[in-house]
Amino acid sequence: MEFGAGIEFSTLQKQRSLYVPQLPPCLQGSHVQVELGDATTVPDPLDAESIKRSFPLTYGQPLVHFVSSLEKPSPNGVQDQQPPLRVGVVFCGRQSPGGHNIICGLYDAMKLHNPKSTLLGFCGGTEGLFVQKTLVISDDIVAAYRNQGGYDMLGRTKDQITSKEQVNSALNACQTLDLNGLVVIGGVTSNTDAAQLAETFAEAKCLTKVVGVPVTFYGDLQNQFVEANVGFDTICKVNSQLISNICTDALSAEKYYYFIRLMGRSASHVTLECSLQSHPNMVILGEEVASSKLTLHDITKRICNAVQSRAEKGKYHGVILLPEGLVESIPEVYALLQEIHVLLKNGVSTESISGQLSPWASALFESMPPFIKKQLLLSPESDQSAQLSQIETEKLLAQLVETEMEIQTKNGTYTGKKFNSICHFFGYQARGSVPSNFDCDYAYALGHGAYHLLAAGLNGYIATVTNLKNDVSRWRCGGAPLTAMMTIRRLLRGLGTPLIGKPSIHPVGVDLKGKSYGLLLQNAEKYLMDDLYSNPGPIQYKGPGSDSKTICLCVEDHDYMGRLKKLQSYLDKVKTSVRPGCSQEVLKAAVSAMAYVVEILSLMSPAGTGHAYHPLEDTYANM
Amino acid sequence: MEFGAGIEFSTLQKQRSLYVPQLPPCLQGSHVQVELGDATTVPDPLDAESIKRSFPLTYGQPLVHFVSSLEKPSPNGVQDQQPPLRVGVVFCGRQSPGGHNIICGLYDAMKLHNPKSTLLGFCGGTEGLFVQKTLVISDDIVAAYRNQGGYDMLGRTKDQITSKEQVNSALNACQTLDLNGLVVIGGVTSNTDAAQLAETFAEAKCLTKVVGVPVTFYGDLQNQFVEANVGFDTICKVNSQLISNICTDALSAEKYYYFIRLMGRSASHVTLECSLQSHPNMVILGEEVASSKLTLHDITKRICNAVQSRAEKGKYHGVILLPEGLVESIPEVYALLQEIHVLLKNGVSTESISGQLSPWASALFESMPPFIKKQLLLSPESDQSAQLSQIETEKLLAQLVETEMEIQTKNGTYTGKKFNSICHFFGYQARGSVPSNFDCDYAYALGHGAYHLLAAGLNGYIATVTNLKNDVSRWRCGGAPLTAMMTIRRLLRGLGTPLIGKPSIHPVGVDLKGKSYGLLLQNAEKYLMDDLYSNPGPIQYKGPGSDSKTICLCVEDHDYMGRLKKLQSYLDKVKTSVRPGCSQEVLKAAVSAMAYVVEILSLMSPAGTGHAYHPLEDTYANM
Repeated sequence: MEFGAGIEFSTLQKQRSLYVPQLPPCLQGSHVQVELGDATTVPDPLDAESIKRSFPLTYGQPLVHFVSSLEKPSPNGVQDQQPPLRVGVVFCGRQSPGGHNIICGLYDAMKLHNPKSTLLGFCGGTEGLFVQKTLVISDDIVAAYRNQGGYDMLGRTKDQITSKEQVNSALNACQTLDLNGLVVIGGVTSNTDAAQLAETFAEAKCLTKVVGVPVTFYGDLQNQFVEANVGFDTICKVNSQLISNICTDALSAEKYYYFIRLMGRSASHVTLECSLQSHPNMVILGEEVASSKLTLHDITKRICNAVQSRAEKGKYHGVILLPEGLVESIPEVYALLQEIHVLLKNGVSTESISGQLSPWASALFESMPPFIKKQLLLSPESDQSAQLSQIETEKLLAQLVETEMEIQTKNGTYTGKKFNSICHFFGYQARGSVPSNFDCDYAYALGHGAYHLLAAGLNGYIATVTNLKNDVSRWRCGGAPLTAMMTIRRLLRGLGTPLIGKPSIHPVGVDLKGKSYGLLLQNAEKYLMDDLYSNPGPIQYKGPGSDSKTICLCVEDHDYMGRLKKLQSYLDKVKTSVRPGCSQEVLKAAVSAMAYVVEILSLMSPAGTGHAYHPLEDTYANM
Repeated sequence: MEFGAGIEFSTLQKQRSLYVPQLPPCLQGSHVQVELGDATTVPDPLDAESIKRSFPLTYGQPLVHFVSSLEKPSPNGVQDQQPPLRVGVVFCGRQSPGGHNIICGLYDAMKLHNPKSTLLGFCGGTEGLFVQKTLVISDDIVAAYRNQGGYDMLGRTKDQITSKEQVNSALNACQTLDLNGLVVIGGVTSNTDAAQLAETFAEAKCLTKVVGVPVTFYGDLQNQFVEANVGFDTICKVNSQLISNICTDALSAEKYYYFIRLMGRSASHVTLECSLQSHPNMVILGEEVASSKLTLHDITKRICNAVQSRAEKGKYHGVILLPEGLVESIPEVYALLQEIHVLLKNGVSTESISGQLSPWASALFESMPPFIKKQLLLSPESDQSAQLSQIETEKLLAQLVETEMEIQTKNGTYTGKKFNSICHFFGYQARGSVPSNFDCDYAYALGHGAYHLLAAGLNGYIATVTNLKNDVSRWRCGGAPLTAMMTIRRLLRGLGTPLIGKPSIHPVGVDLKGKSYGLLLQNAEKYLMDDLYSNPGPIQYKGPGSDSKTICLCVEDHDYMGRLKKLQSYLDKVKTSVRPGCSQEVLKAAVSAMAYVVEILSLMSPAGTGHAYHPLEDTYANM
């Protein structure tokens, strides 16, 4: 279809197209001032040198805060005109609800500050970028996609901007099109790519500045500066709606166990959030499995025990959630997948792989049902992970549980009714959803933010909005250098020296010490036995509940930016209270108190462990 | 779980529990008068004698209309007190959103007219009825389920009330519990069962009156008196939301054909309505296939042609909807299923069935992929139809199309990109949904109606609400004898005399001459090629769109009851205008005009074909 052509609007879509996203105060008003903060470092001091070497020109840049003219009013009170900009924008990675609003926010901000600015959309994702297939975004085009789901304004491909050739094509495109800025809409991989582009462009003295925005419904782009990802809120709400419907169904008919697999790649954020919203009987997170090193047998056993306990209370129904990444978190399956991927890479045909696996891997492989064998043999994705959406772990587990329950029935250890299961995979049916109010507002603010970063000539940044769990009127906006979110993975694979990965923004899994997971743990037993299902219903766009946010966002104590500000104000206060001329006592007290602070920090910060903000553990291997 | 215990409410559920369904004017006010209309007949005169023989005591009863005290005010103006009633209610068949509101409406009406009335719910569906497992419905219980989805207030089983033994258990339960009335909540089968119970009870001089309500999200309980079924609106909206999300997804990534199978049993109403709401590229209705006698090969070819035409326009994505009943509508597959079911019934093991099939059936069976073979061998449902929800027709078709496209690629007749498909089955994730406003209101009115039928001592009726496409203030309420909806199927199976079925309320398929299907046909080419996807979004409960109804309901010209009333008023007018003493001219004119009317009717009504309201064709064989 023609990109940007729009489609037939339903009543709701028409309504949504009239919705005006709320803008945080710091992005309102006639002039948005860009305040530079302190120079940034990386979460793990051990990585700092390496990352600096890879990104000499974009490492260590300062944090950026936007300050509204509402705080510092501009003299004339009218909209501040900026020089016109030419900016390109590209969708990367899986479509996430709210993606269109990034473009709408960017477009509105550009036109507001100079109607002569031009926004070019790259058609068909990164492929469009490489071949310079563009669309000039106009008022009409933006109007057709305001607050709408999907990525169909421009389309997308899954391709990344990683190879030398791809990076050069992108550089060439930006130079040929004479762009002042390029906005990359995507998740961890795309923002890592954006960082690489920024560095390469700077090195090539290309005038195009590169800015990323955190858009991925997987919710795995999380760090000091990024509290949430565009799309996550909507995806979790749609999935929770469906899971809850299934819970209600289970409770009505009382005869099936539903095994539901959810999208989210290696991280289990979607599954965790959906569990908190809908209270299914059981959840198995990839991060739990990896951290406890649970085998396929352990997991099967755990589910069988649940079935057993519930049968003893006369219950023969239940709902069990699994993340699609679970399969890679099970140590022996992961190892099997690695062997398969190496063989595939070496050109071994799928028919002859089984014979070339190590004895134990071959034994595991041969024990699997045929449908899973076929799925395990699929070529890995471009990021080397398995084709998670294609591997029906829910069916595998349901089958293993059924077999085990049959054995127990024969043994006489299980005397309940026959175990019946129904399997579901929820993914594609949520991705294209009309975005929630939260995702609309968040994405729109990020789009505005991306403009202000580019207008300030900043390169290699991600647009940030923080304090998200509070009202929009209290959101803080700014930007952080992409390099400041990077870590390096060191993996001991087999024998030999550790494999050191490239500096990257890595997907962050569920924090097993975090509050969201704690909330789940705390209720797990009740949810398992008591069927305390809760049905959040379909996303509402008006009235009570329409401004709800994810539970994960609301229970976690983010506000890194707020604390940075607070720290700065304390330091300033000490400085102003203890100026030359103050009494000896005050000075002594200040020195003594500060010595204590410095001592604590030095105790916390040595060799990359235990420093205040270290990246969430990702023990589940996924390079 | 404890029935009637309620669950943890989400924000939306709390809100919904406060929703007050609108009540049509005829059910408001201090007194609802029950007006008896003319004696009823059946749609096909050929069936009349047979049905009368089977239902001597409940055949030919009059239609019932409720007239509000708003029209005929009661003298004292206060709520009319009726004698207290003891009523039982039972959920039968698949859970449909809105089912709980039948009970809420029934309960409220009972208590309104006498607080001493008692409503007993049967726990666990018909099984609870047989063993007299009851729950006294209270204010608290009703409060926990107002406007909520599922059947979990009482639970349900799929069992029917068909065998002599089951009917006797039901009779025994109603007598033991001293019930004045029994309300059966269900679809075609359950309402047929209700008719049988009513007749049996009357014969046994049991005082319990039986009333049915049309609740089935399949939407296949349609006839002169029933315009829509509770649950259909919600199910179609939830499915359309998901289908639309998938359309948006297809349009964003442009690389997959999505094959989506929808629930609905043998009829394709859900699929048709969802197509009208979301405009997917292609739909294959079971009724079309049966009426055109399309083979599996024909259907595959049709899809391949679509893929080919779209590829010529550079499009490699699409969304194709299939009803779950499709598989039984394909003549050769239906015949194969029949052979399998006969062998299963004769105790042949699944392993040896293939060898005992007729040569052509065996050839077809062996040509199928293994997963479908396994599914085709499943035992039929209690109504002798195949286990439609378990047969993955979408995967079969996707695979057949893929194979065909590969052949065409090799032949050089297809030169486009590789055909990729993703398959989905949408069913369970919609059934438990929080019901739409329409389903809440409709079910609540039916619940009230059921009470008034019982209070009037009527037996063997279905509660009706008509003129549904108009505002609630114009809805007409009443009841119709269940026998008046019955037909008898005559099937020529193989050689010999036709097999005559029992009088039943049969599922009605999509009317290929109807306006809804016409609307689809009219747009089919555009939808196929132009991607005119429309996303109705999630069900809204407040604001614009929250009172929307299904397109099928809105475009069809129902209002049978309205026309009956109009006919009556014309007849009355003729009578009053032409009274003894009127002029010869007037009398002559009246006689001549009426002769003409009678002539037309006699031309239309002879041998069961071509009379005004004959049952919608169900050429697709399903006994």
